[in-house]
Amino acid sequence: MSFVDTSYTAAESEAMDAALTAALAGPRGANPLVGAVILSPDGEQLATGYHRGAGTAHAEADAISEARKKGIDIVGTTMVVTLEPCNHVGRTGPCAQAIIAAGIAKVIYAVDDPHDPAAGGARTLSAAGVEVISGLEGEKALDLNRDWFDAVAAKRPFVTLHIAQTLDSRIAAVDGTSQWISCPESLADNHGLRGLIDAILVGTGTVLVDDPRLTARTPDGELSAHQPIRAVMGLRDVPQDAAVRGNDGRFVHLPTRDPAEALGMLFEKGVRHLMVEGGSSILSTFLAADLVDELIVYLAPTLLGSGTPALNDLGITTLADAQHWSWDEAGGGAVRILGNDLRLHLRSPRGAASIIKNSIPGSEAAEYVTGGH
Amino acid sequence: MSFVDTSYTAAESEAMDAALTAALAGPRGANPLVGAVILSPDGEQLATGYHRGAGTAHAEADAISEARKKGIDIVGTTMVVTLEPCNHVGRTGPCAQAIIAAGIAKVIYAVDDPHDPAAGGARTLSAAGVEVISGLEGEKALDLNRDWFDAVAAKRPFVTLHIAQTLDSRIAAVDGTSQWISCPESLADNHGLRGLIDAILVGTGTVLVDDPRLTARTPDGELSAHQPIRAVMGLRDVPQDAAVRGNDGRFVHLPTRDPAEALGMLFEKGVRHLMVEGGSSILSTFLAADLVDELIVYLAPTLLGSGTPALNDLGITTLADAQHWSWDEAGGGAVRILGNDLRLHLRSPRGAASIIKNSIPGSEAAEYVTGGH
Repeated sequence: MSFVDTSYTAAESEAMDAALTAALAGPRGANPLVGAVILSPDGEQLATGYHRGAGTAHAEADAISEARKKGIDIVGTTMVVTLEPCNHVGRTGPCAQAIIAAGIAKVIYAVDDPHDPAAGGARTLSAAGVEVISGLEGEKALDLNRDWFDAVAAKRPFVTLHIAQTLDSRIAAVDGTSQWISCPESLADNHGLRGLIDAILVGTGTVLVDDPRLTARTPDGELSAHQPIRAVMGLRDVPQDAAVRGNDGRFVHLPTRDPAEALGMLFEKGVRHLMVEGGSSILSTFLAADLVDELIVYLAPTLLGSGTPALNDLGITTLADAQHWSWDEAGGGAVRILGNDLRLHLRSPRGAASIIKNSIPGSEAAEYVTGGH
Repeated sequence: MSFVDTSYTAAESEAMDAALTAALAGPRGANPLVGAVILSPDGEQLATGYHRGAGTAHAEADAISEARKKGIDIVGTTMVVTLEPCNHVGRTGPCAQAIIAAGIAKVIYAVDDPHDPAAGGARTLSAAGVEVISGLEGEKALDLNRDWFDAVAAKRPFVTLHIAQTLDSRIAAVDGTSQWISCPESLADNHGLRGLIDAILVGTGTVLVDDPRLTARTPDGELSAHQPIRAVMGLRDVPQDAAVRGNDGRFVHLPTRDPAEALGMLFEKGVRHLMVEGGSSILSTFLAADLVDELIVYLAPTLLGSGTPALNDLGITTLADAQHWSWDEAGGGAVRILGNDLRLHLRSPRGAASIIKNSIPGSEAAEYVTGGH
């Protein structure tokens, strides 16, 4: 459901900018980044909220909760939020009902929920007498979650690609050894992600060479509470004694070499956030097909000089066709130091023109003219 | 000349730590990192100085100048410095004379000047009645400049290796295109370095493929005031019309494939700081021979998937033999954002156990036990 664009007060525009900034604190994945600000009738920002990822409070509920903690009366206030409030009863209850129950008088949101329009919360809010306006900073809000909107539109999971590489982008030495290129802190970070996603995917080649378990584990080696589906993609058989099979029924073999088909199969199984772990051919296949939304690279300060490169072919033959990824500040920053490694976080070229790119410190463009090396 | 180790006051030890930290602000290169602190008789740190690179004031002179700016009388004070004060008249005058002239009563330094002992300033200071003690934090001071001491001992230039690469460590696409993988800010940074070093080196292959000029240029394309010697290494001829030849007499062809021999030739010509720029074979040859002291990587957030890898062979076949480099905080930091690129700064594995490694934020070690992927 779309509402008419209108003119906004300076306080409303500022609140939307604050909500967009707040949204960036959340992680990418099955759910979009969302931020919300509660505005008093005289334009004061009373409380801010954001969504911390699947299974946690939505941004609107987070802002209402923040206001309650502060003991602020929010009856008659305006909720400024980067995405249309939801109407469905998921793990966290519908935001439309929470907004109505809180006595909020007006809702300004940036972009519509991309799912079935009838399911959006705007109609429910409006029917309950809440004034609803949409479109403020709509472009920025779309950019903020460009990759997620793409995944929703394509009815495929949001795809995170994981690479653990040396400085010269090798993921294994000549003799196949790869344990461990990353430092313990990077391994722990990766296992933390495994405990949040719906599924993890490797190729049959990786199973045959490394025999990984692909479970999410805590630093002391225990299984995490939440385990992802373990997907192996490829036409070769997965050995009966492969560790990835486990005995919890969460293993699945996807007998295809087509990444789009693999994503379709996983979406059918309810997977909304997939992490692709390797090897080189699988990583390259997903990247070449433009089916990666987020890239997480653990970069160790080591050199091998030879061995298995992280990527082996993207179908690119000239520099002008290189894939230009964007640094992504969402969910903890574009560049982080993890132990002795760097953790790099990037968005797909589809999301390149987003507000996030401009938020990297020191990224001011500068003119520099040279005529050769 | 070595002086006897002794016991030190807490103020003296703290001053040496402060001097070691101050030293890190300087850049690596032909000269070592040096820091100095002037200490009052009652243990107060009056002024701090450090060396900003070849051609600028030494740390001792910098500290004396800092004290004068503050209007502080330093007669009878103690100079705490990370390296034996120099005695030679270079571009900046001998520090021993400056210390004597300033009326400083005592000098505590960490490690001896590694050049001809007779040339050290300790003997001059002592002969002039200045009390001189050495050895305080000697190990840390050696670690601080481990790579530089190695270069001095081997009578070779200090070697900086430069790599401009994609995230997947490619330095050219399949068709050979490489201009420009790096962003304008990275190119400017590289040209700034060219304006400080004694010589720049590439292989004959790079000359034949890219025909680089290898001059140091300002962002508007003008030649910088200082130009490095332009060295081309390899057995193939350098074409008569190659841009690298220029017409200023600063071109040299080194007819060898042996990096140690090339360094010897350049040292003979007075080169004390060399930057090796490429291509892959030259970079790999220097790295495999353990003849690189400092690594500067401009990392663009782009993917090519194929093309020329930055390195092609280090003689390493298994992960246990990987080269482990250390993040280097000296001269502006280990990780910097330059435009859209990351600039990574690392020290050779020889310098790995230095104090610098521990100064990276968030580098606390953590236990993490896993039994497989």
